[in-house]
Amino acid sequence: MSQRQLSLNAFIPATGHHVAAWRHPDAAANGGHEFQHYARVAQAAEAAKFDGVFLADSAAVWGGAGVGGTDRQGLESLARSARGAHFEPITLLSALAAVTERIGLIATVTTTYNEPYHLARKFASLDWLSGGRAGWNLVTSANQHEAQNFGLDAHVEHADRYQRAEEFIDVVKGLWDSWEDDAFLRDKDSGVYFDADKLHPLNHRGTHFKVRGPLNVARPPQGYPVLVQAGSSEPGKELAARTAEVIFTAQQTLADAQAFYADVKGRLARYGRSPDSLKILPGVFPVVGRTEAEAQEKFEALQNLIDPKVGLALLSGMIGGFDLSAYPVDGPLPPLPASNGGKSRQALLIDKARRENLTIRELYLSIAGARGHWQVVGSAEQVADQLQAWFEQGAADGFNLMPPVLPTGLDDFIELVLPILRERGLFRSEYQGRTLREHLGLSRPENHHTVQRNRVAA
Amino acid sequence: MSQRQLSLNAFIPATGHHVAAWRHPDAAANGGHEFQHYARVAQAAEAAKFDGVFLADSAAVWGGAGVGGTDRQGLESLARSARGAHFEPITLLSALAAVTERIGLIATVTTTYNEPYHLARKFASLDWLSGGRAGWNLVTSANQHEAQNFGLDAHVEHADRYQRAEEFIDVVKGLWDSWEDDAFLRDKDSGVYFDADKLHPLNHRGTHFKVRGPLNVARPPQGYPVLVQAGSSEPGKELAARTAEVIFTAQQTLADAQAFYADVKGRLARYGRSPDSLKILPGVFPVVGRTEAEAQEKFEALQNLIDPKVGLALLSGMIGGFDLSAYPVDGPLPPLPASNGGKSRQALLIDKARRENLTIRELYLSIAGARGHWQVVGSAEQVADQLQAWFEQGAADGFNLMPPVLPTGLDDFIELVLPILRERGLFRSEYQGRTLREHLGLSRPENHHTVQRNRVAA
Repeated sequence: MSQRQLSLNAFIPATGHHVAAWRHPDAAANGGHEFQHYARVAQAAEAAKFDGVFLADSAAVWGGAGVGGTDRQGLESLARSARGAHFEPITLLSALAAVTERIGLIATVTTTYNEPYHLARKFASLDWLSGGRAGWNLVTSANQHEAQNFGLDAHVEHADRYQRAEEFIDVVKGLWDSWEDDAFLRDKDSGVYFDADKLHPLNHRGTHFKVRGPLNVARPPQGYPVLVQAGSSEPGKELAARTAEVIFTAQQTLADAQAFYADVKGRLARYGRSPDSLKILPGVFPVVGRTEAEAQEKFEALQNLIDPKVGLALLSGMIGGFDLSAYPVDGPLPPLPASNGGKSRQALLIDKARRENLTIRELYLSIAGARGHWQVVGSAEQVADQLQAWFEQGAADGFNLMPPVLPTGLDDFIELVLPILRERGLFRSEYQGRTLREHLGLSRPENHHTVQRNRVAA
Repeated sequence: MSQRQLSLNAFIPATGHHVAAWRHPDAAANGGHEFQHYARVAQAAEAAKFDGVFLADSAAVWGGAGVGGTDRQGLESLARSARGAHFEPITLLSALAAVTERIGLIATVTTTYNEPYHLARKFASLDWLSGGRAGWNLVTSANQHEAQNFGLDAHVEHADRYQRAEEFIDVVKGLWDSWEDDAFLRDKDSGVYFDADKLHPLNHRGTHFKVRGPLNVARPPQGYPVLVQAGSSEPGKELAARTAEVIFTAQQTLADAQAFYADVKGRLARYGRSPDSLKILPGVFPVVGRTEAEAQEKFEALQNLIDPKVGLALLSGMIGGFDLSAYPVDGPLPPLPASNGGKSRQALLIDKARRENLTIRELYLSIAGARGHWQVVGSAEQVADQLQAWFEQGAADGFNLMPPVLPTGLDDFIELVLPILRERGLFRSEYQGRTLREHLGLSRPENHHTVQRNRVAA
């Protein structure tokens, strides 16, 4: 019997995850518009046998954590970050499909500002282009700037977003089942290209969508591209328990990660699913050195590159948008008004500042690296120990690796940490399968029309 | 002074343009889901120095001419055609960008069932991935099956579609101008990634769209990806005269093509544009042999592969959806009721049948090859002569080449016709430029914010 293995994705924003990464001498500062940079990173991850590469997304400039606060603050800090402009994920992964052979390709796309027909079609096409390596990270969007690019004045409410997402994913799966796997005969002699009985319009009429179908792409090689989700709210966890195959989650401590893991895995039985059918991959921001001191030095070098404007805006974004620029950066956090946005994270941060008696600068430095994700700074051995502990103590099935700087942060992990994990039998030396689904140990979903046909025939 | 040169795009549906192409022994019957097939075709076109490859599109299974008639007829004929399922164009061209270096990559996308932010973003990303080789063929969709995949019961009316397209293209251009060309400093020392004065939100509020912007991709290498259009209606020609840089048009005779050419070029002055700023490329369906007899044989071989069900459905679609399956295929066309769809084409076809005393079979055979486009069957010399005549007699700036079968129909043209065109000084032997815009001899549009800034400074 083979030992349980870690799943590892490489989460690869152009210059890396640290907020000041682009200023680092090793960073490809223009990586967000340079295909060769991405090709090199994806090929390195593939050579190291990662399950997949992972791309975040926002359909607006101001996307994601890290650029928050007021608009003025936002623009000033944005101008000092590398987050303003970069490749769109589906086009980038399609291009990467052509220069890689085995690694999975996971793109984030929102259900809130998209149409299911377009999304089903593009991911099916990517799955064919890549020979079964596509994954879709479903998000419902987190900021009003996206809404304003799509005709709305304000962001769609959380509950509405999740109701839409629930219906969206059912429509997308229905479209992926439009053609049965063996529908295409392509028989030149008889002139029959496909079996008309194996093509199924969808005729979906729901609350949010009316979609006739069928899809104009054959059923994807994986059946469905792998379904990834990242929501940690109550409706997010429930949607994941019903539909997700991979969860990317932000957990700061082993105890929190264990609680999340048990919570989500515990919901699966209700949907007739086994615990193995959903892989939980916390994000991890590893700063790796040959020694602990070297790792600390690397981390300090990055921290020293943080422009106070960027640090302040990042912190403002995490405490509900309150503008801190008028306060001395080496003084304490001022009293803060109540806010509607991100309450729990805000409370945790303010508590931390008070408890540890941190200045504003110390507080933003404490969050600037991993930005809410698990940060591990240490020797290769120490990093491997920690990953193994989470993996073996019910906190993770693997990790979404967030290199501090690209390309070198990924190279460090590959050169220093992976050999240790391999030695311990925790990570593959060769791919066993060809598809992302196979790398992750997920089964290929059957076409529900085929299932029905076989049931009738039996 | 160098001689005026032909522009040539290769229009590459998976198996070729002839309605029975996929049954031909040379055809890659599964080409629509096989990336290596497309890579080979695009690389052959690039080696032959084509300006670009061109992909049609429909956001539904039943797209395009060739699958029409009633639903029953449609399904029966569709099952005997290769048109039901295939790659989505933007993902496919993104992948092709990674395995080619110089050839342009033109994808059709509708404005009727898309959002301008998504479209601007994907084409900007493709332009960066390809180093300035993207082109967008704007269409407004031609069938109700697309509408029914996007929440509507019926197709949007023609006039509404064109009003939406007019506004759509302005929003897209505005988004492409979000960042000035020199906005990105990426200065690691100072920590300034971009010049905040060179980022411009759009704040568009129009009839169809409300889009704040800015785009989260840098200004495309070409300024704007090349704008292609295919509409031949009155609003279509007017939209093209205002905004298009390439027109793909269906013209059957030299006289018609000359009239169209003069009409559209004559409209440009009204928008302050020179005749050279818009290239007119009629479609041509060339069946090329070493001799005329060989070409005729090749054509007959294809015609003989047409399943009557496919021929009938094709014809039905072109005469307004009237079901002909109850009539003897070797008898005359029955009297036809008046119809609302495709009136002029319908009248032309019926006239032709009566005038030439054609049976139903003869009539569908007469349209099955080029499906409304110019069909040239002949020796390489004859084909070259005809192309030259159109090019030199005010009918065309080049052609959108529609190979009957892929890959061999394109190979034939490259091996047999291109050497003659080159000998006559009508087509390049090497690329002179690196971008699609440069291949076509189109100037790079300036960013309107930069123009304004320079005007103020002057």
